Amino acid sequence: MERALDGVEIVELEPIEGEGLIFIEGFPDVGLVGAIATSFLVDRLGMKEVGYIDVEALPPIISIRDGSVKELIRIYRKDRLIAIVSDLPLPAAMVKSFSQRLMDWIQSKRPELFISLTGIPEPNRLNIDKPKVFILGSSKEVVERALEHEGAEPFKDGFIAGVKGMLLRESVRRGVNMLVILAQAHFNYPDPGSAAEVVKFLSRILDIDLDVKPLLESAEELKLRLRDLMRRTSHVMQGIQKSKELELPPVYL
Amino acid sequence: MERALDGVEIVELEPIEGEGLIFIEGFPDVGLVGAIATSFLVDRLGMKEVGYIDVEALPPIISIRDGSVKELIRIYRKDRLIAIVSDLPLPAAMVKSFSQRLMDWIQSKRPELFISLTGIPEPNRLNIDKPKVFILGSSKEVVERALEHEGAEPFKDGFIAGVKGMLLRESVRRGVNMLVILAQAHFNYPDPGSAAEVVKFLSRILDIDLDVKPLLESAEELKLRLRDLMRRTSHVMQGIQKSKELELPPVYL
Amino acid sequence: MERALDGVEIVELEPIEGEGLIFIEGFPDVGLVGAIATSFLVDRLGMKEVGYIDVEALPPIISIRDGSVKELIRIYRKDRLIAIVSDLPLPAAMVKSFSQRLMDWIQSKRPELFISLTGIPEPNRLNIDKPKVFILGSSKEVVERALEHEGAEPFKDGFIAGVKGMLLRESVRRGVNMLVILAQAHFNYPDPGSAAEVVKFLSRILDIDLDVKPLLESAEELKLRLRDLMRRTSHVMQGIQKSKELELPPVYL
Amino acid sequence: MERALDGVEIVELEPIEGEGLIFIEGFPDVGLVGAIATSFLVDRLGMKEVGYIDVEALPPIISIRDGSVKELIRIYRKDRLIAIVSDLPLPAAMVKSFSQRLMDWIQSKRPELFISLTGIPEPNRLNIDKPKVFILGSSKEVVERALEHEGAEPFKDGFIAGVKGMLLRESVRRGVNMLVILAQAHFNYPDPGSAAEVVKFLSRILDIDLDVKPLLESAEELKLRLRDLMRRTSHVMQGIQKSKELELPPVYL
Amino acid sequence: MERALDGVEIVELEPIEGEGLIFIEGFPDVGLVGAIATSFLVDRLGMKEVGYIDVEALPPIISIRDGSVKELIRIYRKDRLIAIVSDLPLPAAMVKSFSQRLMDWIQSKRPELFISLTGIPEPNRLNIDKPKVFILGSSKEVVERALEHEGAEPFKDGFIAGVKGMLLRESVRRGVNMLVILAQAHFNYPDPGSAAEVVKFLSRILDIDLDVKPLLESAEELKLRLRDLMRRTSHVMQGIQKSKELELPPVYL
Repeated sequence: MERALDGVEIVELEPIEGEGLIFIEGFPDVGLVGAIATSFLVDRLGMKEVGYIDVEALPPIISIRDGSVKELIRIYRKDRLIAIVSDLPLPAAMVKSFSQRLMDWIQSKRPELFISLTGIPEPNRLNIDKPKVFILGSSKEVVERALEHEGAEPFKDGFIAGVKGMLLRESVRRGVNMLVILAQAHFNYPDPGSAAEVVKFLSRILDIDLDVKPLLESAEELKLRLRDLMRRTSHVMQGIQKSKELELPPVYL
Repeated sequence: MERALDGVEIVELEPIEGEGLIFIEGFPDVGLVGAIATSFLVDRLGMKEVGYIDVEALPPIISIRDGSVKELIRIYRKDRLIAIVSDLPLPAAMVKSFSQRLMDWIQSKRPELFISLTGIPEPNRLNIDKPKVFILGSSKEVVERALEHEGAEPFKDGFIAGVKGMLLRESVRRGVNMLVILAQAHFNYPDPGSAAEVVKFLSRILDIDLDVKPLLESAEELKLRLRDLMRRTSHVMQGIQKSKELELPPVYL
Repeated sequence: MERALDGVEIVELEPIEGEGLIFIEGFPDVGLVGAIATSFLVDRLGMKEVGYIDVEALPPIISIRDGSVKELIRIYRKDRLIAIVSDLPLPAAMVKSFSQRLMDWIQSKRPELFISLTGIPEPNRLNIDKPKVFILGSSKEVVERALEHEGAEPFKDGFIAGVKGMLLRESVRRGVNMLVILAQAHFNYPDPGSAAEVVKFLSRILDIDLDVKPLLESAEELKLRLRDLMRRTSHVMQGIQKSKELELPPVYL
Repeated sequence: MERALDGVEIVELEPIEGEGLIFIEGFPDVGLVGAIATSFLVDRLGMKEVGYIDVEALPPIISIRDGSVKELIRIYRKDRLIAIVSDLPLPAAMVKSFSQRLMDWIQSKRPELFISLTGIPEPNRLNIDKPKVFILGSSKEVVERALEHEGAEPFKDGFIAGVKGMLLRESVRRGVNMLVILAQAHFNYPDPGSAAEVVKFLSRILDIDLDVKPLLESAEELKLRLRDLMRRTSHVMQGIQKSKELELPPVYL
Repeated sequence: MERALDGVEIVELEPIEGEGLIFIEGFPDVGLVGAIATSFLVDRLGMKEVGYIDVEALPPIISIRDGSVKELIRIYRKDRLIAIVSDLPLPAAMVKSFSQRLMDWIQSKRPELFISLTGIPEPNRLNIDKPKVFILGSSKEVVERALEHEGAEPFKDGFIAGVKGMLLRESVRRGVNMLVILAQAHFNYPDPGSAAEVVKFLSRILDIDLDVKPLLESAEELKLRLRDLMRRTSHVMQGIQKSKELELPPVYL
C-alpha cells in the first residue's frame, strides 16, 4: 500500500485479471454524461466492487451509503467488464499525471478495449430530441470496428480537453485500443438523455441488453441529485478553460 | 525525536502499551462536540498526561496552565483508555497526512476500539431539546455491537468531511475497529448540550459512570471560554468547505 | 519514454538522422509570423510527421484532425529539412529550460543550419505594403552567407525576447549555426503578409521554389482561424513583457 | 561554514565554551522590551562580540557602525554571560525552525541557565508607573529559584506566541533550564520603562550591579531611534496574529 | 558547462588568471552610479570581453549590439583590471545567493582588491554641485589605504542594502579586500554627475588617467538612454524596500 509520488494509488481488493478485459470510465465532465452512463451500467449489470483509486488531491471527504463507508473512485467488475466510477471530478492540475497513471495500470492488464464515455457541448441541445453520438479512437481500426454498429458517426475535427483527451493521447502513444463515445450534451447541466444515447450505443458495442427506460424515467430526480456534482464539475471544467483556454487553434492552412 | 517529513511527531512520555486499549479522539469540529466531550472525560476520570503530538504546521503558540507549559495536542491515559485532546483544530491542508500518521500509530497499538467523538450540523438545533446520537463504524460488527447499547441509531447516508472522515476511511482500509459517535449540534457555536449526549452514550459503551450534570451546569461559561477555539475551528471548516465543497454528490441512480 | 525533470520529452517516431540537416522552427509569437510560415512550408512541401515534443506544462488538450489524434508540437521532415510546428505558444516560465532542451537535441543532430522564423513588432505596419526582412545569426559567417541572397538586411541593435532569443543565445554559446529571419509584423494580429515575406526569403536560402500566392489569398480566412492562437500567444507575450519588461537597456556610452 | 538546510548558521568567532554559561536572548517583540534590555546589558557590561547568527531569510541588509560592518544577529560574551542581540525581528515563518536550531546550539553548551527577556502586552500600560514583572520557567525548580529574588511573580495562565514561546517549549522538551522574564509593556511602542524593570530583576538574578538610570534618561531618544525596528517588529507580530490568531483557546472545563 | 543549483553560472571565455587582479563591479542600483561608472571605464580603457555570468532568474532576453548577440552580464579585462558590467539589475530574491556565488569566484582569483561602485541616495541632490564621495571597506586597512588618496571620506553609520551590502558582508567574513566607493546620488534618476565623481576617485586609486569630460558631456543623452534600466532598477530597489524595508534599526543606546 505504498503511495506513489503523484498521490495516486490504485488498489485491487481482489486481483483484476483475465483475458480480453474491457475497461469503461465515466469521470464526470460535460453534462455528467460519462458519470451517469457508467453508474447506470454498474447498477443495471449488478457489477461488483473490486477495487478503488485513492487520489491524494481529492478533498478529505468520504461518502456513507446505507451505513457503509465508500471510496470516492471505485472500480467495479462483472465478467470481462471493468467500470471505473468517480463521485468527484479530478482536480484540473492532476489531469495529466492521473491519466498517465491510470493508463499504466490499464495497459498492464492488456485489455481488449478501453472505452471512455463523455459528452460534447452542444449549445443547441435544448432543441435536440435525440442527441447524436460520435466516436473517436486510438487507431483507425478501433473506429472502423465501432462503426460497424449503427447509431454513431466519426468525430472529425476539433479538440478534446481534460482527462478524456489525455487518456486518448496516451492510448495512441502506447498502442492501447481505446474508443471514446461522445454524445451531444448540455455543457453545464446533468444530461441523462444524452447519457441514454451513450448507453444505447455502448450496449451494441458490448453486445449486451440494456434498457435505458429507467434512466429516462428517473431523469428529473437524477438531475436534482446531481446538481452538486455538476457544480463541482463545472468548476473544474472552467478551471481547465480559464487557465488553458478551450478552443482549438489550427495553424494549418 | 526525529521529525517526520510531514511535520508530525507523536511522542510517548511513558510507553503507551497494553492489551485491549481503547482510543478516543475529540479534535475540534462541528459544535466543538468532540473537543468538549473528550476534555470532560479527561477531567472527570482524572486521566494522566502520557504523551503529546507535535504538528509542525500548527501556529507557534504554547499554552501556560497553572504556571506550566502545555503541548497543544496532548495524549492522556487511564487504565485501558487513551484520550487525545487538541487545543487547536488541524489546518485543513494537513487533514489527510495527519490522519494517516495518527492511524499508523493507533494501529501499531493493536487497539480494541478507536472512538471518534463529533457533531453533525443540525440547522434546527435551537428547537431540539435532546440532540439525537448517531453511530457509524468501520465494519458492520462495530456498529451492531454499539447498537446493543440504547440511545443511538445508525448513520445511514451522507458524508463525513475532515479528520474524522479520513480516520474512518483509514480504519476501514486497515481493518481497525473504529466507532464514530455523532450528535446533532450547532455548526458554528460551541454545543455543550450536544457533547453531553455524546458523553452519555460513550459512558454506556465504556461501561463507566459519568455524570454529565457539571458539563451542563458550566455550559454558559464554557461557551464563553470556547469562543476563540470555535472561531478558529470555523475557519478551518470553512476552508474545507470552500476549497472542497461539503455536499455529497451521489452519482447512483 | 522516460520523462525529463523539466517535463519536456522529444520523441522521434522514426530516427531523425542524416548529414547536413536543416532545422526550422516557428513557435508562435509576434504576428504568428513563424507559425504561419512554418505551417505553410510543411503543407506545401508535403512534409511527413516524424516525431513530436511533449511539454508537460502545456494544457491538457489534444487536437483531432480528420479523425486522428494530433500532438500539440509536431516534428516534420522532408529530405534534409526538419520543421517544428506548434499549435500553442510555450508558457513564459518554460522558455529558458525548453530552449536549452531543444538545443541539446538539435545540437546532437549536428545540423548544417537551424533557422528560426519570427516577426518584429512594427507599430507602423498598417502603412507598410511590403514588410522588411531582417536577419540575425549566431556568427558573422552565418549572417554573411545569408546576405548573399537578396531581400534581407542585417538586424543591428535591439533585443530579442522569448524563445527565439534564448535559442539564439544557446546557438552562440554552443557554436551551432543559427539564422533568425525576422519580418516587420503586427504585434497583436496574425500577419500572413509578413509571413509571406519570410517564406520568400527562406525559399532563397533553401533554394526551393515556393509560391506564396496561396498564403496571401487565404489571408483573411487564416486570420479568422488563427484568432484564438493569437489571443493565447498575446497572453504569453504580455506575460514576458509584464514580469520582465521588453525594452533593451543599453548601459553603453 | 556549511549552511544548514533551514538557512540558519551560527558562527563562533571564538569558541564559546566553559562551565555554567548563562545565555540571554532579547529578540525584538512586544514593546521591544527584550531587545532594549539585552542591548543595554551588552553596552553596560562592555561585552565582547564573539560570534553571529546568519539567517538566510533576513533581508539583504548590513549595518555599518563607526565605519565597521556588523552582522544582524550578534553574540556577545563577558565571563559566563552570553548575550544574543538582533537588529531585526525574525520572519514569522522561521520562528519554529529557528527556535529548534538555536536550542540545539544552546543545549550543546550545557548552560546553567537560558534567560529570555520580553514584554507582555498591557492595554492599560499608560496608567502604570512601574510595570509588573512576571516569570515563567521550563520547570518548577527554575521558577522557584527565580522567585527567591524579589520583584517578580509567577505567570499563571495564558499563552506565549512567537520565538519566546517556541524556545520555552523546546527547553521543557529537552530539559534545558530556561527562565522567561516578562514585563508589562506597550504592544506597539518601544517601552524602555518596561525594559528597565526587566533589567532590574535580571540584575538580581545575575547578582550584578546595573544602574538603569541611563536607560530611563535616554528613553525619549531611544524611542525615536527604535521607531523603525518597532514598525518592522509589529509587522511580524501581526503576521503571527493574523495567520495564526493570538488568543489561547482553553478547552478545559 | 554544468549549471549550478542556484541558476548562476560564471563562464570564462579565456582563463581569468594572474597576480594582483583588481575586480570592479557596477551592478545597477541607486542612480545607476555603479553601472554608468563601470561601463565608462570599460569603454575608455578599451577593456576586452573575457567572460559572462548567466543568471537563470534574469528575463529571457538577449541584447543585440552591432549585429552581435551579447550576454546580459559581461566580464571585461585589461591587464590586472577585471570589470563586471550588467545590462539588468539582479532580481531581489537572488541577491543573497548571487553574492555568495560571485564572492566564491572572486575569492578563488586571490584578488588584490575588489571594488564596488555605487550611489547613496541624497534627497538634496538637486542642490549639490559636486557630490561627496564616501568609502567603506572590508577592513580598517583597506579604508586607510584608500583615504591616502584625496577626495573621499569614510562612511560612518548607516546601512547598505542589496547586492553591494551582501558582497561587503561576504568580504568581511572571508577576509577578501573590498572597497566600496559611494557617491551622493539621485535615488530614482540616472546620475552621470555622481558617476563622474566615482570615476575620478577610482582613477586615483587605480593610478590611471581618466578624463570624465566625455561622461559629463553626454550626460543628457545618457539619461535618456538609461531611462528603461532605471525604471527596471527602481522596481528591484522598491522590491527590496517593500518586502524588507530599507532603514537601519540601531538597537544600541
